[in-house]
Amino acid sequence: MNRKMIGKVLSFLLLLECLFLLPSALISIYDGERVALRAIFATMVLSAGAGAVLWLVCRKAQGRFYARESFLITTLGWLLLSAVGALPFRLSGEIPHYVDALFEVISGFTTTGASILTDVEAMSRGLLFWRSFTHWLGGMGILVFLLAVVPMGKGGYSVHLLRAESPGPSVGKLVPKIRQTAAILYLIYIALTVLCVIFLLLGRMPLFDSLCTAFGTAGTGGFGIKNSSIAGYSPYCQTVCTVFMAMFGVNFSIYFLLLLGKWRQAVRSEELWVYLGVLLGTMTVIATDIRPLFPTLREAFHHAAFTVSSIMTTTGFATVDFNAWPQLSRSLLVVLMVIGASAGSTGGGVKCARIVLLFKSLSSQIKRMLHPRSVNLVRADGHVVSEETLQGVSTYMSAYCAIAVVSFLILSLDDLSLETNLTAVLACLNNIGPGLDMVGPTSNYSMFSDLSKVVLMLDMLLGRLEIFPLLILLSPRTWKKAG
Amino acid sequence: MNRKMIGKVLSFLLLLECLFLLPSALISIYDGERVALRAIFATMVLSAGAGAVLWLVCRKAQGRFYARESFLITTLGWLLLSAVGALPFRLSGEIPHYVDALFEVISGFTTTGASILTDVEAMSRGLLFWRSFTHWLGGMGILVFLLAVVPMGKGGYSVHLLRAESPGPSVGKLVPKIRQTAAILYLIYIALTVLCVIFLLLGRMPLFDSLCTAFGTAGTGGFGIKNSSIAGYSPYCQTVCTVFMAMFGVNFSIYFLLLLGKWRQAVRSEELWVYLGVLLGTMTVIATDIRPLFPTLREAFHHAAFTVSSIMTTTGFATVDFNAWPQLSRSLLVVLMVIGASAGSTGGGVKCARIVLLFKSLSSQIKRMLHPRSVNLVRADGHVVSEETLQGVSTYMSAYCAIAVVSFLILSLDDLSLETNLTAVLACLNNIGPGLDMVGPTSNYSMFSDLSKVVLMLDMLLGRLEIFPLLILLSPRTWKKAG
Repeated sequence: MNRKMIGKVLSFLLLLECLFLLPSALISIYDGERVALRAIFATMVLSAGAGAVLWLVCRKAQGRFYARESFLITTLGWLLLSAVGALPFRLSGEIPHYVDALFEVISGFTTTGASILTDVEAMSRGLLFWRSFTHWLGGMGILVFLLAVVPMGKGGYSVHLLRAESPGPSVGKLVPKIRQTAAILYLIYIALTVLCVIFLLLGRMPLFDSLCTAFGTAGTGGFGIKNSSIAGYSPYCQTVCTVFMAMFGVNFSIYFLLLLGKWRQAVRSEELWVYLGVLLGTMTVIATDIRPLFPTLREAFHHAAFTVSSIMTTTGFATVDFNAWPQLSRSLLVVLMVIGASAGSTGGGVKCARIVLLFKSLSSQIKRMLHPRSVNLVRADGHVVSEETLQGVSTYMSAYCAIAVVSFLILSLDDLSLETNLTAVLACLNNIGPGLDMVGPTSNYSMFSDLSKVVLMLDMLLGRLEIFPLLILLSPRTWKKAG
Repeated sequence: MNRKMIGKVLSFLLLLECLFLLPSALISIYDGERVALRAIFATMVLSAGAGAVLWLVCRKAQGRFYARESFLITTLGWLLLSAVGALPFRLSGEIPHYVDALFEVISGFTTTGASILTDVEAMSRGLLFWRSFTHWLGGMGILVFLLAVVPMGKGGYSVHLLRAESPGPSVGKLVPKIRQTAAILYLIYIALTVLCVIFLLLGRMPLFDSLCTAFGTAGTGGFGIKNSSIAGYSPYCQTVCTVFMAMFGVNFSIYFLLLLGKWRQAVRSEELWVYLGVLLGTMTVIATDIRPLFPTLREAFHHAAFTVSSIMTTTGFATVDFNAWPQLSRSLLVVLMVIGASAGSTGGGVKCARIVLLFKSLSSQIKRMLHPRSVNLVRADGHVVSEETLQGVSTYMSAYCAIAVVSFLILSLDDLSLETNLTAVLACLNNIGPGLDMVGPTSNYSMFSDLSKVVLMLDMLLGRLEIFPLLILLSPRTWKKAG
């Protein structure tokens, strides 16, 4: 294991975090928020200082990244960023307990959007900005950002690093060079975010609100800056969110193909059609189901569309209290929570690509049982899917279920309702935010015990990093000397 | 497809069903239950008549069974037996609606034990006996019985038929000949059932009650003949049930190995240890959790042991209302519902063997991610597990989840609570019986709509026949002429 190399990357991450805190500091200066500013500034100094020391120690590191190092960097990097990123909340006293502050910032970076705050509007604007900004950073990934902007010498870039942080069953490079792939992903991400901000500004949403809402939308995070989430904004602004949430749930390689003019190749993506089909199908069913709750069908569809888009992309914004909807709609939302968005998007969940592959494996298995000697290859988007990928998907699902079950059992120690525990686990593991019952859109996560909060934090990280980088930390083989 | 051969086997099943109704008819004669007797007798005549006609048409059929025919026979056989077996309840008027009667008898044959009856004690003894007897017949399987007792000519026996009806990821023959394997399984089954009856009689349980309770225990079914299930019997009788339920949840090949004196081979079964470990572990945790609800620790453990044994083996008997237990215990019971008993037992659920294989695949996958070029074979009980079996297990799990999700959504149309819908689906799909909330041990399934009841019936059959025989019916390939 190349420990110095790992240290070097972590030092860059710390320096970057100092930089990322700068906008929040500027907002605090502008608004004259002294306490928040002091907390943010102290964290910046600490982050930069620790980063500089680590860099001095490890700056001469050389060598290649293999799968093991990449997984380790990803996990340690995310833990470190969260541990430091939680400090401003704690130091300013706006979140008095460190566990709560950590919960909030992990929820931010993993784009979950689950909050322990009972009154969001009481927070300073500097910290509100930082809270929403973590969504944007975590959405596309901070290591992907690092890959895009920091030159790290020969062998320092590895597809493993991209793979470890990017969601989906098989992560491909858009272009042969990793650094360019990362840069393209971020450019598309920035362009779409800017577009979202412009559309929100056109709806007369204030600049600060537009930025924070766009961060939550782009990262499919879901932290609102109002206690009523998005309910207080105009229907136009809500529709902008609906459309942009759905767009950020699409695989970014589709946008890249569209930019290159390769329409035919983009349209051939089966995942895209499944994603859009489920999205529109559920919107229609839920709109019909909740029709009696609203004066017009149009209004029912407006809220159904917003909620489906918010839950399926695992954003978690809310315009209405969907916890009070009829059972069919509630059940559909729980299922959408698990399905999630597309692979290679900023959304969480199991991902449509995996669901498609699971159904294809199933159909191939049935054929094999009827005709044991026939050859049945699974195809997706016109290509044969390797046995390795298929095996990876089913193992992922097993691990996913095992984690959900264990978390669910530990949460049960708090003796809240089964529905609360179940949807809290699903909402955190799939990076959504709100669940049902006591963790519904009008509630928050403050009533859980510290143990449950720690479990939910782990679930958020496991969900965002797609389980294996974290699980591998537990394997004794990871810590052996020999490669 | 060899249609006549299928018809021939179905004719045997109809004739057998007439025979199986005989004990109930005798009990009705003995007790002077005229209405019930007339209904049972009419069904016997119908069953025998239809069987005889079918036999005359198909008696000259010859040929081999392949996987396709075996799956088809299994599914059609179970549907036919249930359709006919429901008649006595409907004809006697004791269950006025045919859908309800069908629900009750499918619940019986599949050893689920979910009931739509609000007052079990109001039923005639003849029909109560038939209701419990279906558990015993369905437990080991009616086709397995057929294989054991009816000679069907060369090629008529096939391991496919045994496989289609027997639970578990890889069904093996105990001895080279199928007919002998089936006979041995039934002999062990009968011996254990007789033993259970004797132990219950020693506890001064009346003969009728002992027989019915033993049928429910042996088949891991769970229909009680009292409204309070097993709560009214002595603690001794309850403990007999606890022990025998746990015994019927063990893979029957273990008993066969023990009979042959092959202790060492029997003890090498990993599934056995996982099964016993989970059983005893959960008993201890739940006993601790429910301790405050009972006057002594001993009593708490008594009920914890009974409930865990009942739920994990998917029997569904109850001594107390576990729906009122604290959340940790309730959550553990839900997890036990899914895990289920051992492969090759009369119990349902996913089966410990599959859970073990899923965890082993997971660990092998993690090793493969760390060292992509290493060879990682999955071993169980000292043997290498074939890729085919592993793939089969993961496909099974995907199908299982998909069925659970779809059923859950359809049940949601009834607008009952999420907990009710979720546990109703799990309790039926895993052949348990009682769930939580409105389908808890003190309630029943009568409040569901007919649509939901049909869905739950399908779930019971899918659970008992382990999904694929039914799914294959839906595949267009099954109905093509060419083999």
